[in-house]
Order: sequence, then structure tokens, then C-alpha cells
Amino acid sequence: MAKRAVLAYSGGVDTTACIPYLRHELGVEFIVAMAADLGQGDELEPIREKALQAGADVSLVVDAKERFVREFGLPAVQANALYDGHYPLTSALGRPLIGELLVETAHAYDCDAVAHGCTGKGNDQVRLDLTVGLLDSSLEIVAPARIWDFSRAETIAYSEKYGIVPHVSKEKPWAIDLNVLGRNVEAGLIEDLGWEPTEEVWDLTTAPQDAPESPAYVTIGFERGLPATLDGKPLAPLDLLRQLNARGGQHGVGRIDMLENRVVGVKSRELYEAPAMTLLIRAHQELENLTLPADVLNQKRPLEAVYGKAVYDGLWHGLLRKALEAFVHETQRYVTGEITLKLYKGGVSVVARSAERSLYRHELVTYGNDCTFDQSSAEGFIDIFGLPSRVWNTVNG
Amino acid sequence: MAKRAVLAYSGGVDTTACIPYLRHELGVEFIVAMAADLGQGDELEPIREKALQAGADVSLVVDAKERFVREFGLPAVQANALYDGHYPLTSALGRPLIGELLVETAHAYDCDAVAHGCTGKGNDQVRLDLTVGLLDSSLEIVAPARIWDFSRAETIAYSEKYGIVPHVSKEKPWAIDLNVLGRNVEAGLIEDLGWEPTEEVWDLTTAPQDAPESPAYVTIGFERGLPATLDGKPLAPLDLLRQLNARGGQHGVGRIDMLENRVVGVKSRELYEAPAMTLLIRAHQELENLTLPADVLNQKRPLEAVYGKAVYDGLWHGLLRKALEAFVHETQRYVTGEITLKLYKGGVSVVARSAERSLYRHELVTYGNDCTFDQSSAEGFIDIFGLPSRVWNTVNG
Amino acid sequence: MAKRAVLAYSGGVDTTACIPYLRHELGVEFIVAMAADLGQGDELEPIREKALQAGADVSLVVDAKERFVREFGLPAVQANALYDGHYPLTSALGRPLIGELLVETAHAYDCDAVAHGCTGKGNDQVRLDLTVGLLDSSLEIVAPARIWDFSRAETIAYSEKYGIVPHVSKEKPWAIDLNVLGRNVEAGLIEDLGWEPTEEVWDLTTAPQDAPESPAYVTIGFERGLPATLDGKPLAPLDLLRQLNARGGQHGVGRIDMLENRVVGVKSRELYEAPAMTLLIRAHQELENLTLPADVLNQKRPLEAVYGKAVYDGLWHGLLRKALEAFVHETQRYVTGEITLKLYKGGVSVVARSAERSLYRHELVTYGNDCTFDQSSAEGFIDIFGLPSRVWNTVNG
Amino acid sequence: MAKRAVLAYSGGVDTTACIPYLRHELGVEFIVAMAADLGQGDELEPIREKALQAGADVSLVVDAKERFVREFGLPAVQANALYDGHYPLTSALGRPLIGELLVETAHAYDCDAVAHGCTGKGNDQVRLDLTVGLLDSSLEIVAPARIWDFSRAETIAYSEKYGIVPHVSKEKPWAIDLNVLGRNVEAGLIEDLGWEPTEEVWDLTTAPQDAPESPAYVTIGFERGLPATLDGKPLAPLDLLRQLNARGGQHGVGRIDMLENRVVGVKSRELYEAPAMTLLIRAHQELENLTLPADVLNQKRPLEAVYGKAVYDGLWHGLLRKALEAFVHETQRYVTGEITLKLYKGGVSVVARSAERSLYRHELVTYGNDCTFDQSSAEGFIDIFGLPSRVWNTVNG
Repeated sequence: MAKRAVLAYSGGVDTTACIPYLRHELGVEFIVAMAADLGQGDELEPIREKALQAGADVSLVVDAKERFVREFGLPAVQANALYDGHYPLTSALGRPLIGELLVETAHAYDCDAVAHGCTGKGNDQVRLDLTVGLLDSSLEIVAPARIWDFSRAETIAYSEKYGIVPHVSKEKPWAIDLNVLGRNVEAGLIEDLGWEPTEEVWDLTTAPQDAPESPAYVTIGFERGLPATLDGKPLAPLDLLRQLNARGGQHGVGRIDMLENRVVGVKSRELYEAPAMTLLIRAHQELENLTLPADVLNQKRPLEAVYGKAVYDGLWHGLLRKALEAFVHETQRYVTGEITLKLYKGGVSVVARSAERSLYRHELVTYGNDCTFDQSSAEGFIDIFGLPSRVWNTVNG
Repeated sequence: MAKRAVLAYSGGVDTTACIPYLRHELGVEFIVAMAADLGQGDELEPIREKALQAGADVSLVVDAKERFVREFGLPAVQANALYDGHYPLTSALGRPLIGELLVETAHAYDCDAVAHGCTGKGNDQVRLDLTVGLLDSSLEIVAPARIWDFSRAETIAYSEKYGIVPHVSKEKPWAIDLNVLGRNVEAGLIEDLGWEPTEEVWDLTTAPQDAPESPAYVTIGFERGLPATLDGKPLAPLDLLRQLNARGGQHGVGRIDMLENRVVGVKSRELYEAPAMTLLIRAHQELENLTLPADVLNQKRPLEAVYGKAVYDGLWHGLLRKALEAFVHETQRYVTGEITLKLYKGGVSVVARSAERSLYRHELVTYGNDCTFDQSSAEGFIDIFGLPSRVWNTVNG
Repeated sequence: MAKRAVLAYSGGVDTTACIPYLRHELGVEFIVAMAADLGQGDELEPIREKALQAGADVSLVVDAKERFVREFGLPAVQANALYDGHYPLTSALGRPLIGELLVETAHAYDCDAVAHGCTGKGNDQVRLDLTVGLLDSSLEIVAPARIWDFSRAETIAYSEKYGIVPHVSKEKPWAIDLNVLGRNVEAGLIEDLGWEPTEEVWDLTTAPQDAPESPAYVTIGFERGLPATLDGKPLAPLDLLRQLNARGGQHGVGRIDMLENRVVGVKSRELYEAPAMTLLIRAHQELENLTLPADVLNQKRPLEAVYGKAVYDGLWHGLLRKALEAFVHETQRYVTGEITLKLYKGGVSVVARSAERSLYRHELVTYGNDCTFDQSSAEGFIDIFGLPSRVWNTVNG
Repeated sequence: MAKRAVLAYSGGVDTTACIPYLRHELGVEFIVAMAADLGQGDELEPIREKALQAGADVSLVVDAKERFVREFGLPAVQANALYDGHYPLTSALGRPLIGELLVETAHAYDCDAVAHGCTGKGNDQVRLDLTVGLLDSSLEIVAPARIWDFSRAETIAYSEKYGIVPHVSKEKPWAIDLNVLGRNVEAGLIEDLGWEPTEEVWDLTTAPQDAPESPAYVTIGFERGLPATLDGKPLAPLDLLRQLNARGGQHGVGRIDMLENRVVGVKSRELYEAPAMTLLIRAHQELENLTLPADVLNQKRPLEAVYGKAVYDGLWHGLLRKALEAFVHETQRYVTGEITLKLYKGGVSVVARSAERSLYRHELVTYGNDCTFDQSSAEGFIDIFGLPSRVWNTVNG
């Protein structure tokens, strides 16, 4: 049984209750609380102190926002990673980073276990457990909330027994996860597939109907598949993401209301707000359409879905995702250029594209007089391209 | 050399010039002009007469709109067929039908050749030639516009030589193709990738900025993957499509501005307006997400792209598309239900879904107290699901 | 808790012990033992009686060999279903049939549960449980051997307590599963990856070195993808399979020694003997190469692996496999013809192929003078087929 | 029109006739003949002289065998590249290298064109043209044998007109292509699909029936996916390949008799002998099965077919193959170990595998008492893994 554990700590009721539970029920002797700041917008010092009050031996807060965007968010943009066709993996991308931080902290504090407060129904338990398994399989994983059988009231009561005054906010009607890449809302009324979300569930985005009457234009410049400029101005990744979240959100862009297939075999409905990721992926796809050959696109598009599923399933650090990333990386050397998007009332459209190494060749495709495409090749091409069709008809027609 | 030919006739300058060219330059003795009405909105009787004036021996007009929607448009919806991620194949789907009509007409009039007015740079020549090859490879294919080397002025001059008074409209600044599934615009200013289309290029859709200030809701009911009702009211396919085009178009829905990879190896920029197909495919995808298992969706999605490419490349009648259709068909038995879409200022979002055979099970996924999901299974599941990850780390970590 | 259960019964030590265990430990009141004969070569009447002696209320033996070959083996041949590239799924195909028989029997005897003797480490538990779930999810599944913690000696002792005299054969050094499609051997020395199997592990096949000095020729005729004749003589499926097993086995054909990835996340080494399936799939692939177009083969080959994995994972009755089968079925309409195989010392090679609807056209491909392939089309074809490559170099070279 | 051309020269009747044809019919003023030695076994100095006698201004012979194996053969082994399931691309891999050498020579001698003697029916013209297009699209490509309409007798007559005494060997009944990776034979009797090749067509391999009565064992050691040792002895790539060709050939291993789908749309029958590539790919696949996780293998296997098709189609230097190679490369870091193959009478089987980083864990999979696999996880795993199946049945059963 574990003697020293690092706990993924958020300051919430559940992870706070984990601290006494680890010590008193599970016999853990030394507890490090580790709170990672991925941009969830909480004040961190109170959280740090709260863990100590709840009995943690050490309490750490790690600002991981920059690392999150650079090492997780942007590679996902290069892969145009969308799960089940729509979800830009905003929460899912955070878990392998939290897992990394847990393992790093475990090594720093000589721990033999990692703990988290996830329950048994969601995806996050899978992602954290698999990440830890991939990074250091010798660490034990302890998940009190999968073991205890507490209702929320019981969790609070249990905490109070150990002198913890839970910050019991008015219970929200849904569950929220926020980071710098986006926001996820689920549960409550959202579980009713016929319920159209009302404005109170949304936070990062203006309602399309309340968005400005005039469209906005955003030009995103990419260098080798990585966003580097906004309207021509160079920006560091985190700043660029924040600005795109603000500008997209203002115009109602990036609301996603979807059914998704959870790792644990059930379909669930999820709401996401991800203005920046929505804009980045749309622009990046278009720039790839301009700079990558058709045969590469035909292979990359389905592999992007495989990549997205690997991330969703918690396998960020697995060899499959790394091999897919190597494929992606090789293609991104050519993905340099600018895409201009138009934002209007929740909609996004591409209105201009340019790239020094554009594979779109006006001289080949124009219907004007200066066309260099050799039409006389068409007959030979079709003769051979259509040969299997003619043979098929001759034989089976 | 062919003696009797059926010509795909549109009434335009090029296909009209084909009639004397076939007879006088290529020695065809008997010419049947066949104009297919797929909903291009032209008056047909003048077209029929024009072919006779130009020297056709027989001139036919075929109303194929109903057949077009039923046999081509709706199966494409079941396959969610989009080429290069965006194009719902509105024009591409028409070509195999025109090819069918040409071959049927050739057989009826004992022709030994099929002729069309396509040039050597586009996709349509490929689609028509391959369709004819797949349906009757004994028919010769004659494409005068790939042979002659006429500028537009020369084509007109050639026609006038044979007494044809071309209906020389003010030359449009772009090329348009219209049918009941949608509208395609290309060439001219559109060839400039940095040019944002002005309102004059669009016809089926209101500009999002001029669309109604209030959103509209549309509920599409599917029976086994086929759209059957609109807002609860049963509608025949053609009517349903027209109503969706009107309602979507009014709200600015279905504008597509994209780069695509042509069959003949070049990238081109195309504009499409396809309100109905956009709404149908979005609703159909969502209903599939509700009624099909995750493993089926994971295979069907990439196959949809293969299906779309086969259609784009002119292989509608090939065995590959038929085999993919069999896959699709087997899945569609379960795709029955209703999806409500919200239309607003060019945007579409899903706001409600229902299906008698919904695989979304509220009781399994709810965070409420009545949840029947057995959390105690999670640990065993993750233990085995994560086993390869832990072994990997043990060995390679 | 279940009151009436049908047990998948084999006559072995484990499934026999399940009978008292179900009654005395788990409170099952009515037990039907169901033994399916898939060609495992046991005498069935003693097995039937043994279940009664062990306390079953009803004991049934079902001859399912014909059904096994027709409904499971031959569709797998049409799909060229191989798991991990080599395993023709001989055992895996039996499980969905046993599951069907269990559910049918449960319905006939008004049972509320299905029981089996599988342990928790293998694939078969997964396959049986999933099959029952897919066919009647209201049936409880009881797996005593996953619950009890008996060593083999303890299982025997437990049985003897209830008066069962186990047929304790000299313990074999490996585990064997046999049916009419083939034979599987695992465990024991086989777990050592460096151990070359000695002759005693093999049973259906002669050692290549002891096989006849002269090769044998076998001609298999297919009708729409189904094997129908052997050396020109029509044969019923079961007979055909048996003859191919005999003839292949005599020449040492069909030995497979492989690493495979189990459903439960581990790699294992398995030995298989499957002469008939090896010959059928090799011949069937070749006939497809002759009668199906390249684009169909390019899609079908990877889907075959997906099909094989679905079967291996226990999802025979799932929608994914059925949809894949619909794809396969559409293609098989054209797969009619004869393939001649040469069998020699463990090796198989194709030596002749013929099909009325062969897509191989000698007149197109011959280097002789009568070639009808139009070489002049090649330049146009290459000009366009190579256009993306030249544009790529122009832009990025 | 080109003034200075480098010609891919083989010493044969066709490429020799190209020299006067280029000069006298096509007006080329400066001709460099470049013969690449890929191991075709010809004496090179006579070939070099022959080109000069035929009128070449410069005649070069390049020993490229080492480069061929290192830069083309071994990466193809890492990708397990097989076209249409069987062909290890022995000839196809040579063309991009010859293309490289042609372009390098063109640059060295300031040529504006590249010439070759391929006809319009085969794959090699496509491969050479695409390679040159990918490497320097400014070079003109001239293919006299696609232009002239000579029978063989006419080619000889044409050559004699320019004083060339063709080395008219007794015309062989088939066409042969040989290099250090293998040998290809086609045409003649081989075009008859029912003809079993007689011994005279084979050259690198002993007939299985005449192969030694005792099996041989070969142990191949790989370092990061590259073959490095034979029976424990380090060997340079070219030596290793030659030894494997010799040892495999002696035992009749590596004969391939197949139908394949040519780039130009026809099916053809080809015979190959590739003992070394057959042994290397089989061993490499097995080592991957041992050292790569199941999810990686499930993606890599179908991508290997895509890789193989890209090579076959002449796109070695294209971005698609390079991106696939990056995927492959990332995986090969773990593919280190030894595989022992048994060679007997034309057959190959794996008899032992070992790897320091083996993912096969005896302790997890053994049926012995020391098994560490936690069976109690199975129930939870199956409960969740089978959940979609049970929901499906509940809804649709």
C-alpha cells in the first residue's frame, strides 16, 4: 500500500475530501497536493492554502498555461484533432499534462502513488490512469472517489468531520471544466437531448443573436503549421490563443453542442466553447488545402480522426500518437501562409488564403487565355483512367 | 467512325456548335440532342427547338428532377458524401444520371456514339466518359470541344457559318452550373484566392447579413436514413429538397467557398450554394450519432470520404461505390428519428434530437441519482484497457 | 439472482464442476447443459450423460457442424478474415454460434441466465458474453470460473464432493481447442517464444519433412465467393472443408505459429492448424485479384482486417460486422471461377486461375503483336497523373 | 526542344537505338549515356563502350548497389512494403534511384532533358517520369520508344543504319529485370494465367523439389528496424542482402507468381524472385509483432499498403511517402531483436523470436501458477467493453 502520494488537487469539494480519506482510510502517510493552472481562472493562492488546511503535507501550484498551449494545444491544431468530428479536445488535452506534472511531482517528492478525485463514469479517470501508466507504471494509482460511495452531502459531511469547511457554492445545475483552450459544460438539463441550451450555460461566447451586427475579419499567419501571427502581428502562443478566444467569443464563434462516444462505452451530450481552437483549426485546414498535395490530404484527414481518438482515450503519450505526430510533422514543413476568416453571428468562413508555396496554380486552372494546362493530355488521361471501367463493362455489363 | 450519335445538349453556345461540328467535321449522319432537366431552371421548349434549328435530327427534353433527387441526391445524404470535406457533390451527382440518359437514348435510337461539349480541363468530361464506359463500353465517346481549338469568338463564328444565331448573352464573369441539389460558380474573379465573393455571385442564398433577424427552426424526420418529413409533415423527396433550399437559402445557409482537388490533378477554387444538402447532411449525421454505435461510426466516417471521392471522380456506377452503398444501406435501417436545426444568419446548429431507437441512454450517463452505470466496473476496465500502456512503460520507460 | 440457467457444456473438468457450483453456491434451481458439436471429435453421448450425472436437469447435444461451416466459416472466407495477418479465426468463429445456441436454448427452457466455464484471462469469455449481450441482453451471464479461485486440483476436489468422478486424463502439456475449421494449441512450452514446436503438438498436419515427395494439385471452384467444387466435383460445404483439411494436412499445409494481441490487452503465442481455411482463403484472394477492380481491392483488403478484428473481439453479431459483410457480399457477386493450388511440403502456391468474368485481359497486356492497349494515351496520362508532382517541385523544389 | 540530354542506358537494343534517334530525329546535340549498376549482373565496361560507339558524347557507369540497398531497400523493409499483398517492389524501388542519378547527371552536364527507353504500356515510364518531375520539373522528358513505332526488327534496322551492331542475343521468351533486391520475369508464356512456370524462368531460386532435404535456420538481427546481423554476425547491408538471397534461393524461398494492378489500369501477371526481401520482411513483421503495441500495428499495417502503392506508382520522392516514412521511423526505434526463420523446400516459418524490449510478457499470459494477470479485472472490463452491445440489443433487439 502506498505511503507517499501526490494528489491532483483542484480546491473543489471532492479533491479536498480526498486528503483526509487518503490519510485516514487508506493509510497514506505523506500527501502532496498539486494544483495545475491550465487557465481555469481560479485564484490559486487560496487553493494552495486550502490543501494545507485539509491536511496536505505539501501544497503546490504550478502555472502550466504556456506549456499547455505550446506542447499540447498547438500540436493538436497541426493534427486538426477533432473527436467525433466536432470536439477540439480542450479538456482531454489537459489530462496528459496533469499526468506529467503528477509524475514529475511524485519523483521530486519520492512518492509511490498518484491520486485523483475522478469518479468511475467519466473519461478523465481513464486519461489520468493511462498517462501515469505510460509515464511511470511503478506508481500506484489511487482514486478515492471510485472507492467511496458518498453522495455529495456525505462527501461534505465526511470533510467536516476532519475540520474542513467546504466552500459550498450554490450547487450549479451543471458540471463545468475550463482551461485556456476552452470550456466544457455537461450534466443537468443538458442530459435532455431536446433541450436547447439557454444563455446561462455559455460563458466564453456571446449569443450569435447578440453578437455585433458587423462581421469581423481575422487573419492568422502560420509558420510550418504553427500559428505565429494575428493580423500580421507576431504573438506568443498563449497570447494568440487568448486573443482568438476573445475575438471569436465576441462574435459567438465556437459553440459546440454534440453527442459523443465516451471511452467507457456510453453516448453523452456535451457542450463546448472553444473559439480559438475552432478558428485555428478551420484556418489551418484551409492552409493545408492550399499547400499540401491531394494524396497527402486524402491520407491525413482520416489519420486526424485516429489522432483525435487516441488523445480522447488518454493515449497522448502512447507510441501511436507519437507516430501519427511524426507523419503530421513531416507535412507541416510546407504549411506556411495566411488565412483570413470572417466572423459573423456565430459563423466562420474563409475569405482569403495566401501562401508563398501555394500549390494552387492560377495558370493551370484559369479559364482565361493564359492557361498553361495542356488539354490535349486529357484524352489520353481519361483513356487510361477509365480503362478499368470499360473493361468492367465489357466483362460484366 | 461513329454514324449515329446522341449529344448531351444544354442549349449553350458550345453544345449548340457541337451539332454542326459532329455532322460536318466528324461525319456523324444522325444526331439526337438530349437535354436533361435536373432543375437548372431554363425554359426547355426553346432549348428543344434550338437543337433542331442547329441541325439535330431528333431533339429530346427529359424531366429527370425526381429521379435525380431519389436515386442520386438521397443516397448521397445517407452516405454524408462530401468531397474534400465540404462539397456535397451537387453537380457531380448529376453527371452519372446524364450519362445514364445518354446511354438509354443511344440504345433507343440505335446510336453508336455519345457526344458531349465538355472541354479537357474539367471534371465533367471525366465523369461523363467514365459513366458511359461503365454502362456501355461499346459506345464511342466524341467530345468536339476537346478536339477543336476554338476561342469563344471562334465558336460563335463557326456556328454562324451554319446559320446558328447564338443566344450571346452578355458574357457572365463566371461559369455557373445549377440543378435542384445546388449551384456551382467558378472562374473569373473567383480564381483570385484573396477575393471575397460579392453578393452578385450568389443566387440561392441571402447574404447572412441580410438574413432575418430571428432564427428559424426546421425539424427533419428520417425513415431509415431517408428524409421523409419536414416539421412533421410528410413530403415527397423533390418537394422536401425544394423547401429546404428555400428555407435554408432565406437564412443564408449553404454557402461554400472552397479549394478542391480536381480529378485532372489541379487545385481549383469553387463556390457552391447547397442549402438543402447542407441541412440534410448535418441533420443526418447527427441522427446517426444518436442511433449508430461508435465502432460503426468510426468506420463509416472515413468510408464516406471514399464514397465522396468515387462520386467526384465519375465512378458512381462502379463496383466500389456500390459496395460502399451496401455498407451504408445496412446501417441506415436504424437511422430513424427527428433532428431539429436552428438556422440563423448563415449558421446551422442542432438543437434537438430524438429517435425511438436512440442509443443515448439517459439512465447510463446521468449525473443524477438514478444512474444505472456500474462504476465498480471502471477499475477493472481501466486495469485491462491500460494494461498495454503499463507494459509499454515497464519495457521502454 | 438467476433461477434457471443454460450452461455451455464441454464435458471437461471445469464445465462439469460448474454444474454443482451453479446449484449449490449460486442458487440456480434449474440447469440445462448444452453441448454444441462443432467437430471437436469427442463422443457426444458420454458427454450428454456426464452432465446429467453431475446434476444437470436437462442435457442436450446439438450437432452444429453444418451450420458452423455454412453460416460462419464460409462468410469468413469471403471476407478473407485473418486476425493479426495470420489467424483464420477458427476458434473465434465458433463462439458466436455457441452463443446463439445458448440463447436459443435459454428461450426454449425459459431460462433467465446463461453460464459458461471460461476464465478471466482469455478471449472466449469476451466473445460469449458479448454474443449473449447482442442477442438477448436481458439474460444474466454467470461465469463460475471467473468467480471461484480454484486450482485444477481444487476444482477436482470440489467436483468429487458432489460425487463427480472427473475423467482426469494425464494432464496435457498444453491447451487444445478443436473444431471442423481447425485446431488451436496454446500454453505450456508454447509460451516460450524461442521454443520450436515439436511434432507432438500438431495433429491435423503432417510435418513438412514427412509430407509426400511429390506435390499435389487442388482446384477449388467458387460460385459468387463461395467454394462449391473440388477438382471440378460439386461438394457440400462441410464435405468440402473436411476434404481440404485432409488433403492440406497430408501435405503439411496450414500450420500457423504466431504472436497475437488478445482482447484483454496482452500478447500471446498461439499455434493453429487450419489446412482448409488456409487453402480456401489463399484461393479466394487470388480469384478476387482476377475478378475485382483495383479500387475495390484497395478498399476491401484493409476492411478485411477490420472484419477479422470484429470477429476476434466477439462482435460477430454486431452492426459493424454486418455492414462490412454487406460490403463484401456486394463484391462477391463477381467472384466466380477456379483456382488451382499446388501443395508441397507445407507450402501452397497458386499455379492456375480462370474465371469467365476475368478482368485480366490478355489483349491489353500482352507484349505480343496483337496488343490493343493504346500506347499513345500514355503520354497524356502521365502528363496529368504526374502534374501534382511537377507542381510540387516547381513550388517546393 | 532539348539540346542536351542524359539517357538512362542499359546496353540493350532499345536504349542503344535511342542514341541515334535522339540525335538525328529529335535534334539533341549532346548526349550523356548513364548506366546505373543496381546489381543486374552485366559487365559494365562493354556497356559503357557501346554507348560511345552508338554515338553518345559521354558514357558513364555508376555503381549504385550500396546506395540502392541502404536508401531504398532497407526503408522498404521497415515499411514491410508489399504491393498488392505480395510484391516486395524489387524493380519499382530501383526507378526512383535511377531517376535521382539521371537528375544528378543532368545537372553535372548541364543538360536540359532526361531520356529513357521505356514504352508506353508499363509502369517504369510512369516511375521515371514522376521521379524526374518531383526532383527537377524544369527538365524535359524524352521517351523515344513512346514516340517511334518500331517493331523489334525495325529497331535493329534503324540502329544498323547508324552503324550499330546490336548484340542480338537469341530472343528470350520473356522479359527480365534483375537487381540486387530481386528478379522480375514477365511476358511470353507467363501471360497465360493457366501456365505453371517451368524451371527455366527461374534463376535465383532452386526449385522447392530440388532444394536440400534438411531445413536451414537463419537468424536475422535488427537494430531499430534495420537488419544488422546474420546468425549473430554483423554484416553491411549489401553483404547481408546477398547472403540472404543466396541462402533463401538455395532453399527455394522467394518465388512469387502473382496478378498485379499496373499503374496504367490493367491487370498483369508477374513472376518475381526475391529471397532476401521475403526473408527480411517476414522476420521484420514478426519482430514488430513482438515489440510494437496492438494499436500501432493496427494502424501501421494498412499504411504499409499505402506506402507500397506510392512506391509502385513512382511517388517515392513525394511528400506522402515521406510522411509515411516519418510514421514508420518513429515506430522503428523499438524494433530491435532477433528472429530465427526456418527455410525448407520453398517455405519460410518463424521458429524463434527474442527482443530485449519484448512486449510479450510471459508472466501476464502464462497458464502457469506464476501468472500476474488480475482475472478479477475481467468482469469489469467486459461489463464496459460489452456495454454498447447490450444497449444495442436493448434498443434494437
